Amino acid sequence: MRSDRRVTVSFGAAVLFGLTLAGALGATGSLTAQALKDLQTPDTPLVLKAQGSFFVGGEKSEETQVQLGSLGPAGHITVNQMYVRYMVPPGEGKPPVVMVHGATLTGKSWETTPDGRMGWDEYFVRKGHPVYVPDQVGRGRSGFNQAVLNDVRAGSAPPASLPPWLRFSDEVVWPNFRFGSTRGAPYPDGQFPVAAVDELSKQGVPDMSFGMPRPSPTIKALSELAVQLNGAVLMGHSQSGPFPLDAALLAPSAAKGLVLVEPGRCPDTYTDQQIAALATLPVLAVFGDHRDTPTGISTRPSWQLSFDSCQALIGRLKAAGGDAQMLNPPERGIRGNSHMIMQDRNNLQIADLILQWIDEHVSKRSAGAK
Amino acid sequence: MRSDRRVTVSFGAAVLFGLTLAGALGATGSLTAQALKDLQTPDTPLVLKAQGSFFVGGEKSEETQVQLGSLGPAGHITVNQMYVRYMVPPGEGKPPVVMVHGATLTGKSWETTPDGRMGWDEYFVRKGHPVYVPDQVGRGRSGFNQAVLNDVRAGSAPPASLPPWLRFSDEVVWPNFRFGSTRGAPYPDGQFPVAAVDELSKQGVPDMSFGMPRPSPTIKALSELAVQLNGAVLMGHSQSGPFPLDAALLAPSAAKGLVLVEPGRCPDTYTDQQIAALATLPVLAVFGDHRDTPTGISTRPSWQLSFDSCQALIGRLKAAGGDAQMLNPPERGIRGNSHMIMQDRNNLQIADLILQWIDEHVSKRSAGAK
Repeated sequence: MRSDRRVTVSFGAAVLFGLTLAGALGATGSLTAQALKDLQTPDTPLVLKAQGSFFVGGEKSEETQVQLGSLGPAGHITVNQMYVRYMVPPGEGKPPVVMVHGATLTGKSWETTPDGRMGWDEYFVRKGHPVYVPDQVGRGRSGFNQAVLNDVRAGSAPPASLPPWLRFSDEVVWPNFRFGSTRGAPYPDGQFPVAAVDELSKQGVPDMSFGMPRPSPTIKALSELAVQLNGAVLMGHSQSGPFPLDAALLAPSAAKGLVLVEPGRCPDTYTDQQIAALATLPVLAVFGDHRDTPTGISTRPSWQLSFDSCQALIGRLKAAGGDAQMLNPPERGIRGNSHMIMQDRNNLQIADLILQWIDEHVSKRSAGAK
Repeated sequence: MRSDRRVTVSFGAAVLFGLTLAGALGATGSLTAQALKDLQTPDTPLVLKAQGSFFVGGEKSEETQVQLGSLGPAGHITVNQMYVRYMVPPGEGKPPVVMVHGATLTGKSWETTPDGRMGWDEYFVRKGHPVYVPDQVGRGRSGFNQAVLNDVRAGSAPPASLPPWLRFSDEVVWPNFRFGSTRGAPYPDGQFPVAAVDELSKQGVPDMSFGMPRPSPTIKALSELAVQLNGAVLMGHSQSGPFPLDAALLAPSAAKGLVLVEPGRCPDTYTDQQIAALATLPVLAVFGDHRDTPTGISTRPSWQLSFDSCQALIGRLKAAGGDAQMLNPPERGIRGNSHMIMQDRNNLQIADLILQWIDEHVSKRSAGAK
């Protein structure tokens, strides 16, 4: 870990930090030995009342010997459980915040940034909020049901029964996450730390959401987590951006506030009854800059469409008497934020705006209700 | 979280904690809403100089549009990187400890136990050691290369090109992890918290080790991590039990001590030259009780065979002048430990024995070398 600040930018090629070390180990690649050296140590210690991890939900599935990879005879496993890591600061009073990651990613999104700065998980804890970071069901430490893979391998299920396993290439990430219009060409005012973009690439995991039950079991698990916490602010990002809305409809008294960070879409399918239920909760949508960038993905040609869908939802919620608003940093003179806004260079500036909103719209409301 | 202690034991059936909550949410299963209520809060706060996560290693792989799940055009992803979460206590002097998990599991193994007690990760930090917990390459937050899955789905690769995806059933876990001779029949002196065995079941993830390069990329990543840390104690468990040995052979000056917790095997294939290199390092093997239990797995009928292989390796290391020993708790009157010894009810008692060994065999040696 370091205290000085070293920035090396090498676009269109691998970042070459720590090559000597890698060479000494006989490493083949150019991607080794960057991250640890770049980790920043905070000026003050982090004090935690508690930290650890646990699971929410899960059901038993009975599987054949083949479906278990032939590791012993047929038997039961658990599926659809959701891993959650938590950190709780000393003191009482501020609402817990649950942070859910997006497509092809894990809870790592909210931890240390690709260039080694503090993530939102620790920052929100330092500001007094218990923080809960899940891995979506089917990814990371939440696992998935491997039965269909082994059935296809054994020839007892057709290859077409496999779901597609999604993964963003580096080439798609640049325009889709709005670091620049194309790989290696960052926006001059861009806030993403592009010198460390290969570290973001390492955060990618295969995403078999299309092989999961619909709606995603993550939504029910989030609602159960909010109930177990006796109330929580639910924050989603990108793919999971609308999950707080759907989870709140399952547990409206446990969801204390909904923060939708760059959601892929805000649903336009809610009934008036659902809108009335959601209008009882404070809702904040958050978007970055450069939303007109063509993403290269046919199902969502630009993030401006996502922004517009959230503006429409905010309009419906306000018309129903709700407390809903858009946090649009460019309107405040904050330019260049990307889709990975929690990892941007000004990530703590954006966090402060969200924390202020929680204080004013969630904490004060809860205090008033006591 | 709770301060009182509630124990419900229900063998051969699901554990039914929190059913009222689950019922209120319309949950179908009997596995919900246990873990959060059972989390224990320590008596004193945890103070950290730093915490966070990063990656070690990784290489670029060029993939077709189909291999990316058709998410945009062909491009590059990163594979074979290793996710690492870390916690660093204040102060200096005690060596970092890297804790690697076993088959079909993730770094969660070392975190909060299935029944909500403190894991070895936090306990070692509280005893002054920086702790680094990876997810093995190919699992958890380290991801895997999904290309072959999408190729098989598209018909451009044969189903037989899929690796087997391993998963332990609950039925196999009981004898193989030595909770009892069969599911639902715990040893009277067993140390594993069997009332929470369904929470261990949730820790399972599919393991595609047979689809990975050999040797496992995790070994090289561990050696690189030890170098980046300027020296570390490497601790493996079960499948990864021998990894510290192999990683040390890649970076003998950076591995400060090797702790092999219930390794699946201790290799008998090392050359005399390799044994001479390993004999420069302190080595500790750790096993639990009831090692004669038939596992139900043909490739390792009992864990006594694993124990015997480690005794043989210890013999070779000692003959070469090495500082190698076996920690066999039953010899000290500590009975009933399982394969998941870091989660057993007496997990901190076992941890204390390992910590004492590190103090005496690693820390003092390092201090003497200064």
